[in-house]
Amino acid sequence: MGMVIYGDSNSGNCLKVKYLSDVLGQPYRWIKTNALNGETQKAPFLAINPMGQVPVVTMPDGRHLAQSNAIMLHLADGSRLIPTDPFERTQMIAWLFWEQNNHEPWIAVRRKLKSMLKKRDDEIDPALLINGNRALGIMNEHLGTRGYFVAERLTLADIALIAYTREAGEGGYKLADFPAVSAWIGRVDGDLGLPMVKP
Amino acid sequence: MGMVIYGDSNSGNCLKVKYLSDVLGQPYRWIKTNALNGETQKAPFLAINPMGQVPVVTMPDGRHLAQSNAIMLHLADGSRLIPTDPFERTQMIAWLFWEQNNHEPWIAVRRKLKSMLKKRDDEIDPALLINGNRALGIMNEHLGTRGYFVAERLTLADIALIAYTREAGEGGYKLADFPAVSAWIGRVDGDLGLPMVKP
Repeated sequence: MGMVIYGDSNSGNCLKVKYLSDVLGQPYRWIKTNALNGETQKAPFLAINPMGQVPVVTMPDGRHLAQSNAIMLHLADGSRLIPTDPFERTQMIAWLFWEQNNHEPWIAVRRKLKSMLKKRDDEIDPALLINGNRALGIMNEHLGTRGYFVAERLTLADIALIAYTREAGEGGYKLADFPAVSAWIGRVDGDLGLPMVKP
Repeated sequence: MGMVIYGDSNSGNCLKVKYLSDVLGQPYRWIKTNALNGETQKAPFLAINPMGQVPVVTMPDGRHLAQSNAIMLHLADGSRLIPTDPFERTQMIAWLFWEQNNHEPWIAVRRKLKSMLKKRDDEIDPALLINGNRALGIMNEHLGTRGYFVAERLTLADIALIAYTREAGEGGYKLADFPAVSAWIGRVDGDLGLPMVKP
């Protein structure tokens, strides 16, 4: 039995694991799992992941792993996508935590509310736009002098951050206001073989 | 020059790094940095950490590291607090990401609003209590059959999760409703030499 990814293609967290597996040439079976209709809160799924979230990866030995960025660190261990220098590796991991605490909660959530749950702007907490724009500003500042987040080449930090950033327009964020981020999206899309996203 | 921790003792994220350094016997100088009065958004601090957050650790060579859980992974590298088995290590890292995405945003934030910013319950988004209780429930379920989060011994997962869990009462969460969590707090407090927290 090969590797299985339980994922929802509307979820950037799930797409991270797909993008990474594709770029590593790691074969997998994708099991569509709806993150919005309650499926991940029901007993059969909770038996796989008690956290009640996608993605989950089932390894060839049948054991399950949860949390997109943890899964990526596991699958990419020993690959070119994780710096060997301990300091650079920690810088990369710092961006992975920042993504989950300071980017996904605003940018992914506002995109879900607008694009999937069809909320009007006045039904959405204004903090999501403010904090998401602050996150994009931090990324833009950092990328103003660099081609990639760390180590001057593609690492897991780029894959983790691009998943929701490339869809930020669907959340009402204006990527054109963040030119270094837009240029980086084009660069990483090329590295990953993804279609270009127009700002 | 030794290691420096820029931290606010009201912040669980900062305390994680302190608890870890203490248990590893790693000496440091603690530079008090107020996370609430805007200090971390001003130029002198942003020069140290453009993310504008504490904790930051300055290593003996003068380089800075951000993000509490990334800092812990760096400082504890090669220690008994990180499992050597790759699968267990990834399980531990998964809890670190879960903490930043599914625990801190509810439990730490509600505690800050109530205990530090003195908000009344009716001024606080009810989702914080609901989601925080769901997080405590997931922890309680997991700890119902285990003494520690992974590998049956103290790891970074316990240190990351205890920081805000032990103060959850200040956020209006009832730890007595989560007996396995309460027992685990007592166990980890003992391991870390911290005072007992009464549920």
